[in-house]
Amino acid sequence: MELENIKSPADIKGLNYQELENIAGQMRQAVLNRTSQIGGHVGPNLGSVETIIAMHYVFDAPKDRLVYDVSHQAFPHKMLTGRVDGYLYREDFAKVGEYTCPPESPEYDLFWAGHTSPALSLCVGLAKARDLKNEKYNVVALVGDGALSGGEAFEGLDAGGALDSNLICIINDNQMSIAENHGGMYSHLRHLRETNGTAADNIFKAFNWEYVYVAEGNNVGKVIEALQQVKDSGKPTIVHVNTQKGEGYTPAEEYREAFHYRDSYDIATGELLIVQPGPNSTTVLKDFINRSAEKYPTFLAISSATPDSFGLNAKEREELGSHYLDVAIAEQTGVSVMAGAARDGAKVVYSVVGTFLQRAYDQLLEDWAMDPSPALMVVAETGIGANKDQTHLGFWDIPMITSIPDIIYLAPANLEEFDAMLEWGLAQDKFKVAVRQPVYSVEHADYEVDKDYSDLNKFKVLKKGSQVAVIGAGDFLVKARKVVALLAEKGIDATLINPRFISGIDKDLLASLEGDHKIIVTLEDGSVEGGFGQRIASAVGATDMKVLNFGVEKKFVDRFNLKELESANNLQPQQIVDKIMEIF
Amino acid sequence: MELENIKSPADIKGLNYQELENIAGQMRQAVLNRTSQIGGHVGPNLGSVETIIAMHYVFDAPKDRLVYDVSHQAFPHKMLTGRVDGYLYREDFAKVGEYTCPPESPEYDLFWAGHTSPALSLCVGLAKARDLKNEKYNVVALVGDGALSGGEAFEGLDAGGALDSNLICIINDNQMSIAENHGGMYSHLRHLRETNGTAADNIFKAFNWEYVYVAEGNNVGKVIEALQQVKDSGKPTIVHVNTQKGEGYTPAEEYREAFHYRDSYDIATGELLIVQPGPNSTTVLKDFINRSAEKYPTFLAISSATPDSFGLNAKEREELGSHYLDVAIAEQTGVSVMAGAARDGAKVVYSVVGTFLQRAYDQLLEDWAMDPSPALMVVAETGIGANKDQTHLGFWDIPMITSIPDIIYLAPANLEEFDAMLEWGLAQDKFKVAVRQPVYSVEHADYEVDKDYSDLNKFKVLKKGSQVAVIGAGDFLVKARKVVALLAEKGIDATLINPRFISGIDKDLLASLEGDHKIIVTLEDGSVEGGFGQRIASAVGATDMKVLNFGVEKKFVDRFNLKELESANNLQPQQIVDKIMEIF
Repeated sequence: MELENIKSPADIKGLNYQELENIAGQMRQAVLNRTSQIGGHVGPNLGSVETIIAMHYVFDAPKDRLVYDVSHQAFPHKMLTGRVDGYLYREDFAKVGEYTCPPESPEYDLFWAGHTSPALSLCVGLAKARDLKNEKYNVVALVGDGALSGGEAFEGLDAGGALDSNLICIINDNQMSIAENHGGMYSHLRHLRETNGTAADNIFKAFNWEYVYVAEGNNVGKVIEALQQVKDSGKPTIVHVNTQKGEGYTPAEEYREAFHYRDSYDIATGELLIVQPGPNSTTVLKDFINRSAEKYPTFLAISSATPDSFGLNAKEREELGSHYLDVAIAEQTGVSVMAGAARDGAKVVYSVVGTFLQRAYDQLLEDWAMDPSPALMVVAETGIGANKDQTHLGFWDIPMITSIPDIIYLAPANLEEFDAMLEWGLAQDKFKVAVRQPVYSVEHADYEVDKDYSDLNKFKVLKKGSQVAVIGAGDFLVKARKVVALLAEKGIDATLINPRFISGIDKDLLASLEGDHKIIVTLEDGSVEGGFGQRIASAVGATDMKVLNFGVEKKFVDRFNLKELESANNLQPQQIVDKIMEIF
Repeated sequence: MELENIKSPADIKGLNYQELENIAGQMRQAVLNRTSQIGGHVGPNLGSVETIIAMHYVFDAPKDRLVYDVSHQAFPHKMLTGRVDGYLYREDFAKVGEYTCPPESPEYDLFWAGHTSPALSLCVGLAKARDLKNEKYNVVALVGDGALSGGEAFEGLDAGGALDSNLICIINDNQMSIAENHGGMYSHLRHLRETNGTAADNIFKAFNWEYVYVAEGNNVGKVIEALQQVKDSGKPTIVHVNTQKGEGYTPAEEYREAFHYRDSYDIATGELLIVQPGPNSTTVLKDFINRSAEKYPTFLAISSATPDSFGLNAKEREELGSHYLDVAIAEQTGVSVMAGAARDGAKVVYSVVGTFLQRAYDQLLEDWAMDPSPALMVVAETGIGANKDQTHLGFWDIPMITSIPDIIYLAPANLEEFDAMLEWGLAQDKFKVAVRQPVYSVEHADYEVDKDYSDLNKFKVLKKGSQVAVIGAGDFLVKARKVVALLAEKGIDATLINPRFISGIDKDLLASLEGDHKIIVTLEDGSVEGGFGQRIASAVGATDMKVLNFGVEKKFVDRFNLKELESANNLQPQQIVDKIMEIF
C-alpha cells in the first residue's frame, strides 16, 4: 500500500501490522518532506504516527469522534483522511493547515483545537450530545502529556470522570511539552511508565477513569490491541501510551525541543536552512534576562512552557538556576505565580506568548491588576508579523489587556525602546507593567529613548506639524513615518506621535492638537475593535477633530499572506494616505 | 476571652483548646450577626472557623503567609486580625469587605482572591520569593474542596508538587461548592474521607505532595495537632480537613446551598427578611429552560457551579435529568462542553456569571467562536446593578466578549426582549449567540419585540427625531428614555435607539443619521473602554457628527454605592443632558 493512495481511513482497515508499519514509515517521510521545506511541527507528529494509525484502524471515524489536543500532532490524521497530498507535494502544502481545521474536513476535523488542553472538555460535550440523541459511538480524545498540565485538561478529567458513558482519552506521553515538562505530575507519569502502569496513586483513577497502559506506543500492533480492548467501553477510560517524540528521525530524537516546531531545514542534517541574524527583540530580551539575574538577588523569570519566547536554550535556563521557573503549559498559574512572587518583593518577569495569555484573562484582572504586585510581563508573538495560523493570531492582546484597569501596557517602537521599557518595568516597584514585544518591524531608535515611564500615558511627539496627527503605536510607528512622508509630498506637514502607552491616552496632548489639527490618525498592530485607537476616537468625539482608526478587522483569518492582509485592512501607507485625503 | 477583645493572632496563642472552642462559638455568633443583617457568605465561614483558628494558633502570621481561596471563607481570619468589629457592630459592618482585601489589612490580607482556585499558584509565587530571599517561614493556602475543581487549582497542585520547599495546602473539605460538587474527583475525595485518608490512588500524592488527613475538622484541637505536625515542613504538604458547611447553625447545616450566600435573614428561623417578587430576568430564564427541555430532545443546560443563575433549585435540577449538566467551578470546561455538545447538534444553553466567565476567554475565542458550534450563552450578573464587590464587578464582559469575532452579543432592554432573544438564540443553528441578562432595570416592553435576530447588527429606532441620537444599550435603555425626555423639555426632539446588538454596529443606520443629527450619545451598562460605544465613536470618526460615550470608567471600585457610582461617571440622566448641551 502506498501512502499516496490512501483516501480515507477505510483504506487501512484491511492491512496487517507489517503493512501498517510500512505506512507509518511513509508517513514519517511525509512529515519530514513537508516540514523540512516549509517548517512545522516535527517531533509531535513523528511520535504520534502509530497511535493515530491505530485510532483510525480501531475506531470508525467519522462515526466515532476523534478529537486532537493540541492538534499540532494531527498530521497523521490528516494523511489518513484524504489530505495526504498536503504532505507529499509542495504545490499542495498550502491546502493543509498546521492544526485540525473544520473547513478543511468538516466530517473528520471537529474542532480547530490549536491551543492545548480543551479536548477532554470538548469530548464531554460530544458525549453528552450523543447520549441525548440516544446514539452509540465512541468519543475519543488524543491528549499529549504536555497538554495535561493546562488547567482545563484537569477540569476535563474531572468532568469526564463523572460521565457514566463512553469516553476514551488516549494520553500520548512523549515525555515532553514544547521543551521539558515541569510539575509534580510528571514524576508520577514517570513512575507509571517505569512500573508498566502499575504505580500507586494513579492520577487517572483518582479522577474516576479506567486505566490501560501501553509501554510500546510506537508499536502499532500494541496500540491497536489496547484500543480494541477499550472500544465501546461504557466508562470513561484512559489509554496511556508511551511514545518517543521525534521517533524515527535521529535529529528530532536527539534535539527534541528544537524539533518540536522547526523552520525549514536540511533533512540530511537537521540544520536550519535560514538562520536569522541578531539583534532582534528576542536577543534584546534574552540579554535583559541575563543582566537582571546578575543585578537582582530575587530575580525570577517565569515561563509557561515556551522558553523560546525568552530566547533561552536548555543550557542557559540551567545557568539561571533558581532565577528561572517554568510552570508548564499553565498561563493561569504563570500570572498568579508572577503576582505571588511580586507580592513578596521578588523582581519578576513573565514572558508569555500573546495568544496563550488568553487563558489567563481572569488572573490578569483578579490576581495581578488589583493586587499590590508590581511586576513585568512581556507579551511575545503579537501583531500581524507573528504567527499566521488562525488559532495563534497575535491580534487580540491589545483589546484583552487594555480592558483591564491598572495594567500599564507599553508598545515599544524599536529595540532601544523595548530595552528601556524592560529595564524600567523591572526596576520600578509601583506598577503592573506589560510590554508588547515588537515583531512586525525591527528598528533602531533615531531619537532619544526615555528611560523612565512612570509619568503614565505621556505620548511622545517625534515631529510637530499641523493639520494631521499620525499616532503610530509600537511596531507600526514605521507605517506612521511612511504616512507622514507621503503626506509631506502632498504639502501636508503632519505631526508624528509615538504613544508608547496603549492602555491609556494622553489627554493633554490630544487637547493641544485641537487648535491646529483637523484629523487624527491611529495605527495599531492588532484588532482595531476594542483597541487603542478607538479610545482616542472616543476621547476626541466631542471635538471638531475627525479620527481614522487603522488596525486589523475583528475577523478570523487563517494562514494569511501578510501583504494581502495589510491591503485588505487599508494598512498600506498609500491606502492610509488615500483615506486621509478623502476627508482632508 | 471575649472575641471583641482579640486584636491580633497573638491574643489566642496562649489559650487552651476549651478556650479556643469558646472563641469559635463566639465567632459563629458574629458570622450570623453580620450576615443576618446585611447578607453574606454563611455556610463557608461557619464551617471554617476551627480550621482558621488553628491556622492562626499554629502559624505566625504575618511572618507566615496565609492565603485564602476563595476568600469568602475568610471571616474568621478577619476576626482574628484586628477586624472583629466588622462582625459585631452594625456601624462597623461596612468597614470590612466580603473577601480578603489588601487595603483593609496589608500585612494579613495578601490578595483579594475573590475568585476560586488561584491560591496554590499565588503561594508558589510566595514560596519562590521566600526562597530567593533565603528566608524561612511557612506559606499556607486554605482551599475549599469546591475550588479544587477549577483548572488553576490543579495547575497549582502540579507547580507546587515540583517545589522542593515549604508549601502547605489545607483542603477545607465541606463536601460542597456553592451547590453540590460535580466531577470524578469528588467520589475520590469521598473515598478518602470514608477511609480516614487511606484510600488508594491518592490524587494529592499523584501530584507529588505529602498528605495528612483530619477527620474531625470542626474540632479545633485535632486541626491544631495536624498543623503542628506539618509546620516548617520542607516539602509540599496537603492537610485534608473534613468539615461541615454551616456547622453550628441548624438552618445552614440543613439548607447548605441556600446558606452558601444568603441575603439578610431571621436568625431564629433562617427565613429571608425580604423575598423579591417576580417576574424578573431570572424567572424568565428559568421558564425558558423548562420550556426548552420539553421542546428539544437534545436540550442541554450547562452550569459551572452556579445553578442559581438559572434560578433552579436542587429539585428542579433533578427534574431536568440528563438535560442538565453542572461541570463544577470550571468555566473553561463550561464553554468547551457547550461548544462540543453544540458541534454535534445538541441544543445548548450555558448560563454563566459574567465575572467568572473571565476564566474562559481563551475557550470562547478558540473553542467556541471559531468552530461551527451554534449555541446560546447567557451572561448573568452583569452591569452596575449586579454585584458591588471589586472582585465580582459586572463591568468587563462587554469589552471581553465583543473583542472576539463571531460571537453575537445581544443586550435585551426588557423582559420580553430577553425572552425573545433566548428563544431565537436556541432555535437558530447558525450563530454563536450570547445574551446579556438584564439586571439594572426590569422593564416590560412598550414596543413590538422582534422574534428574529438573524439580520445581524440591526439597531431598532424607537423614536425618530433629529439633532441628537441617543443609543441606550440593554438595561440602560431606561436611561436613554429619560435623556430623550429631558432633551424634549429643552425643545430638542432626539432620536431614541435600542441597538440590541452590542458586538457590532449598524453602519446603515449610523450613515442615515448623518444628514440631520449632529451628536450621537451612547449609553452602556459596563466599562466604556473597549466597549460598545467606542466602536460607534470610531465608526463615525470621519463624519461631522460628534460622539459622547457614557459608561463606567476603567477602574476598580469596591462595595460601591450605586447612586454615587452613577454620579461619578456622569450616568445620571441630567448629567448626560448637561454634557450634551455643552457641545450642542
